[in-house]
Amino acid sequence: MRVAVLRGVHDVMLEQRPVPEPGPGEVLVQVLAVGTCGSDVHYYEHGRIGDFVVRQPLVLGHEPSGVVVARGPDTTGHDIGQRVALEPGVPCARCAQCGLGRYNLCPGMRFFGTPPIDGAFCEYVTLRAEFAHAVPDRLTDEAAGLLEPLSVGVWACRKARVQPGSRVLITGAGPIGLVAVQAARAFGASEIVVTDVNARRLRVAAELGATGTIDVAAYSLADAGYEPDVLLECSGAPAATAEAIRLVGRAGRVVLVGMGGDELTLPLAHLQRYEIELTGTFRYANTWPAAIALASGGDVDLDRLVTHRFGLAEVEQALTIGNRDSSVLKAVVRPDA
Amino acid sequence: MRVAVLRGVHDVMLEQRPVPEPGPGEVLVQVLAVGTCGSDVHYYEHGRIGDFVVRQPLVLGHEPSGVVVARGPDTTGHDIGQRVALEPGVPCARCAQCGLGRYNLCPGMRFFGTPPIDGAFCEYVTLRAEFAHAVPDRLTDEAAGLLEPLSVGVWACRKARVQPGSRVLITGAGPIGLVAVQAARAFGASEIVVTDVNARRLRVAAELGATGTIDVAAYSLADAGYEPDVLLECSGAPAATAEAIRLVGRAGRVVLVGMGGDELTLPLAHLQRYEIELTGTFRYANTWPAAIALASGGDVDLDRLVTHRFGLAEVEQALTIGNRDSSVLKAVVRPDA
Amino acid sequence: MRVAVLRGVHDVMLEQRPVPEPGPGEVLVQVLAVGTCGSDVHYYEHGRIGDFVVRQPLVLGHEPSGVVVARGPDTTGHDIGQRVALEPGVPCARCAQCGLGRYNLCPGMRFFGTPPIDGAFCEYVTLRAEFAHAVPDRLTDEAAGLLEPLSVGVWACRKARVQPGSRVLITGAGPIGLVAVQAARAFGASEIVVTDVNARRLRVAAELGATGTIDVAAYSLADAGYEPDVLLECSGAPAATAEAIRLVGRAGRVVLVGMGGDELTLPLAHLQRYEIELTGTFRYANTWPAAIALASGGDVDLDRLVTHRFGLAEVEQALTIGNRDSSVLKAVVRPDA
Amino acid sequence: MRVAVLRGVHDVMLEQRPVPEPGPGEVLVQVLAVGTCGSDVHYYEHGRIGDFVVRQPLVLGHEPSGVVVARGPDTTGHDIGQRVALEPGVPCARCAQCGLGRYNLCPGMRFFGTPPIDGAFCEYVTLRAEFAHAVPDRLTDEAAGLLEPLSVGVWACRKARVQPGSRVLITGAGPIGLVAVQAARAFGASEIVVTDVNARRLRVAAELGATGTIDVAAYSLADAGYEPDVLLECSGAPAATAEAIRLVGRAGRVVLVGMGGDELTLPLAHLQRYEIELTGTFRYANTWPAAIALASGGDVDLDRLVTHRFGLAEVEQALTIGNRDSSVLKAVVRPDA
Repeated sequence: MRVAVLRGVHDVMLEQRPVPEPGPGEVLVQVLAVGTCGSDVHYYEHGRIGDFVVRQPLVLGHEPSGVVVARGPDTTGHDIGQRVALEPGVPCARCAQCGLGRYNLCPGMRFFGTPPIDGAFCEYVTLRAEFAHAVPDRLTDEAAGLLEPLSVGVWACRKARVQPGSRVLITGAGPIGLVAVQAARAFGASEIVVTDVNARRLRVAAELGATGTIDVAAYSLADAGYEPDVLLECSGAPAATAEAIRLVGRAGRVVLVGMGGDELTLPLAHLQRYEIELTGTFRYANTWPAAIALASGGDVDLDRLVTHRFGLAEVEQALTIGNRDSSVLKAVVRPDA
Repeated sequence: MRVAVLRGVHDVMLEQRPVPEPGPGEVLVQVLAVGTCGSDVHYYEHGRIGDFVVRQPLVLGHEPSGVVVARGPDTTGHDIGQRVALEPGVPCARCAQCGLGRYNLCPGMRFFGTPPIDGAFCEYVTLRAEFAHAVPDRLTDEAAGLLEPLSVGVWACRKARVQPGSRVLITGAGPIGLVAVQAARAFGASEIVVTDVNARRLRVAAELGATGTIDVAAYSLADAGYEPDVLLECSGAPAATAEAIRLVGRAGRVVLVGMGGDELTLPLAHLQRYEIELTGTFRYANTWPAAIALASGGDVDLDRLVTHRFGLAEVEQALTIGNRDSSVLKAVVRPDA
Repeated sequence: MRVAVLRGVHDVMLEQRPVPEPGPGEVLVQVLAVGTCGSDVHYYEHGRIGDFVVRQPLVLGHEPSGVVVARGPDTTGHDIGQRVALEPGVPCARCAQCGLGRYNLCPGMRFFGTPPIDGAFCEYVTLRAEFAHAVPDRLTDEAAGLLEPLSVGVWACRKARVQPGSRVLITGAGPIGLVAVQAARAFGASEIVVTDVNARRLRVAAELGATGTIDVAAYSLADAGYEPDVLLECSGAPAATAEAIRLVGRAGRVVLVGMGGDELTLPLAHLQRYEIELTGTFRYANTWPAAIALASGGDVDLDRLVTHRFGLAEVEQALTIGNRDSSVLKAVVRPDA
Repeated sequence: MRVAVLRGVHDVMLEQRPVPEPGPGEVLVQVLAVGTCGSDVHYYEHGRIGDFVVRQPLVLGHEPSGVVVARGPDTTGHDIGQRVALEPGVPCARCAQCGLGRYNLCPGMRFFGTPPIDGAFCEYVTLRAEFAHAVPDRLTDEAAGLLEPLSVGVWACRKARVQPGSRVLITGAGPIGLVAVQAARAFGASEIVVTDVNARRLRVAAELGATGTIDVAAYSLADAGYEPDVLLECSGAPAATAEAIRLVGRAGRVVLVGMGGDELTLPLAHLQRYEIELTGTFRYANTWPAAIALASGGDVDLDRLVTHRFGLAEVEQALTIGNRDSSVLKAVVRPDA
């Protein structure tokens, strides 16, 4: 099969590899669509994200959908031909974190496209059957892949306990900000205010459910006089984060979703006096069923995020299009293209 | 002013009383619309609900909206002319329950239309200002009154922790069942199945967001093969409740909203083996802001529930129309009619 | 090895079987002590508990401690000679319940001494290594086995959210009631009132931390004027349960731990008006680390519960001693005796 | 009556003022003992804490106990002669925060010794009756006053969800650290490791329940290899805080209790990857009943904290003794001395 391999910084090559064999409890999935993510781009450009370093050739891509084409020994529960969305991380299922249902924090997690585990920019992957989630016909292949970023938004809303009555501020209207907008809407948020410096993205945010937008290239967030009770930080910009936290109201929740920098200067006195709860998200756990329901019920529009499509031979273009074209929201790789 | 007074079982008379004076911190509100509730009907027909016994003439009505026409001494925060939805119970604000934010459980609660506290089937009422919630123009007077039953639905969904992914069974499609449907939809429930014996009501449920309905006059709920993770019991029928609880899945939540009978035969072994959490609701606390947001944002349609309207002189008809007309959902009393 | 086998109602025989081989990820454990439980007795006397029916020879015993004597292939993390407490149920680690951290609700659970899975009334058992919890030297073999019932108490206290300030009523002072007393004490409960009809057991309860006891053979619980905010029901007597629930205060929690009967008549109006939360426990999840800490730190005294000891050849006596001797709290089987 | 008045930085004078009259719902309390707190010292030395500025003569002291000597009109529930611990902040009981049970976040809070509200360094104070909590005989006057700092510890443990099995790191062994140790013990924590630079304080911590201590003047906390799942930060030293947060394990909770500086440099990547929850405490809500139970049940020893005693004429000495004597834990002012 054809596989797009990251061999070093700024170096992706198409290789031929044997189709993998599904092990016990696994399925073999033909990949139909894979979203590209900021972390894929970061590995391509820097060869590492924090402690995760690319030391050997790596296949990126962790937002895949596909179709089941074979089952390993003792694998039950999936018919051949079933279309599936792939949850791209398989935890050990043995440790304390797994036992507690926090499998995203499993130290033994094997996650697609995170060194040294290969991802889905290829024609076939194997996966434990329970992480290949059946999707209904009304979801497109691309939407099925984008259940992965939607899961990030769902997880953030769970952490923030978004519900009817919530006033939500979302900083950053990139792909994660835009799924957060839609997730917050689906959780019943009463107000959703989104900030970005890109007016085009803010228009998409408004289209997808934001009740207000602030172009922070032109206007100061602090001057907006907005007091959210939830902040979903999706920009990864530490200075903007600190400013946004200062706006959060009493007993508010701050969820740091965006990655960026190792440190954050926290407005401590405000956090203490208002007893604000702050946490971060690391991937997600147990989100696919909800994400599938949202996307297939029409509450969330994932296809709207797809702006560019590439074949397997064009993975490098998919990873760099964002540098050349400011209209990109989500570039999707289609191995069958 | 004119006041409709319950003087005994099956005995409501229009009386003249002086317009009340708002005390410190209170507002005087001219009543615009008041929904009738099953509990009003129960007092009218039986003179009591459990331990609450009508021992002296009583004014019923606890789903009122109105307009602020005067302020008491030291009352701040409301302009004359402000249209308001009235939260009809004022707790003591001193006891342990109030301190804990569970003011609905306050032993000193003074609740409209619950003996010996008069309700809103009259032209003017006084109320502590913070329980008169300003409503936006886009809410009709009647919808503003029906924020009270909507609050019941919101409270039930909070107790049940409804969110995207939830599969919700709602037993009973009366007014409370129908606000529960809409609240569950707003909280993001992925499936909402509603049961009733009245096909007309089930059609309204479907219109308002139910994803499935079961006419339990014709079909057995147990045969439906449905395994909800949330049961919002809104029928008040103990036998139906026990049957429905048997369907609830592992770690599911059961919220008993409907009133009916003092005892319930609980399927104990099922509850234990599945670790189902069961609770009941008693009114609500801190729900108006969310309810206002839902109704004014269009997520919830309260006007759809109003099927009949009466003047103050016709309160007795409003309380009995349900016996004569199976199409009644919510009868509203309009003192200005 | 020698194995005590339940061949039918009132029929336990000692047999010889081969020592089992530990599979991948498993350890082989020489059994040192096994507590007997009411459910063991129930299987012995009735051949079933609800839907769980003994259809073939079954080894009972699910409160074991032991010592690791061999490791299967790929098993890490346990030295030979390590003394361990065995968590006697191994879930599938694949299903939705396992993913959510509620592995006690796993439909594929394989639980010691529950048909058709054999238990620990024998000389050697195999178990997945992560369910064999290392215990410190200061815990006796018998206390290590009784971490299993202690886990039941810990789980009940978690469900009930017991903490400093809690007023706890525990109905029933059998072994489960007595571990519940100790667990509630360890969770910081301010008051712990225990009921039973057996004065001897009530004395033990007082010794282990109960702040009050009521002999309900002589005094009416309802007359005691006690309003707990937590009820841990450990008697399994439905009538007593209903009576106790009526005492629980506003927003109180009821956890049904005791098994007994398929149905419970619930005081519905009280539950609703006080918004009481009721649930049941089914085994436990993620409790051994806490239980080990409590028992080895001296907060809990498990050895105090052991009143009788038997060898493998005397399992039948261990299961029937409760019928002959009212002083029994916990009979322990010691295969090495 | 005699009143110790802070007239400016480093300027406390004894004045005569009339005994206050209790208003409706209030009690008049003769003050028996008042702990001094770091915030009292801070006002004395700097004339402000953040936005709270001493602009007019102010009476400090917010850890008082006393005895009820008179009742205002309509005050019920307290006998003359009842000894009481005073919860020193009275919220408005009208706003959204109060309604939600988060009265410590009430914008209208009137808190003893916080400008412009006078505190308890005087002979008599008035207070709403429900904030004067009856205490049993076995609590000394001084312990009754120190229920206030104990409440800080209880509140921190609630926020951190400390329970059996918890491994707790407490940074700082001043009075707040020492009540946190005792509260954590009472909540069932399995391990409690305390850090300070003062060996004497660490010895007290060990005496009061710490299972380990680290003298961070001599040893590096980072080198200790300890991974707590709860951090109760009681030092108020931002650099130490950041270092301690880096140690917290997966899904751990960090509660910032100590005050110090407006900003904190947060180890962002660690917080996100481990999904650590971080919050701060601002006073407390609904803690006195639990604190009274702990202190009177013997789980907590507040008298152990009292190292120095002063009369009303010596308030200035009480506020400055910490500068002269490193053995001070808690200096208590006794107006009757």
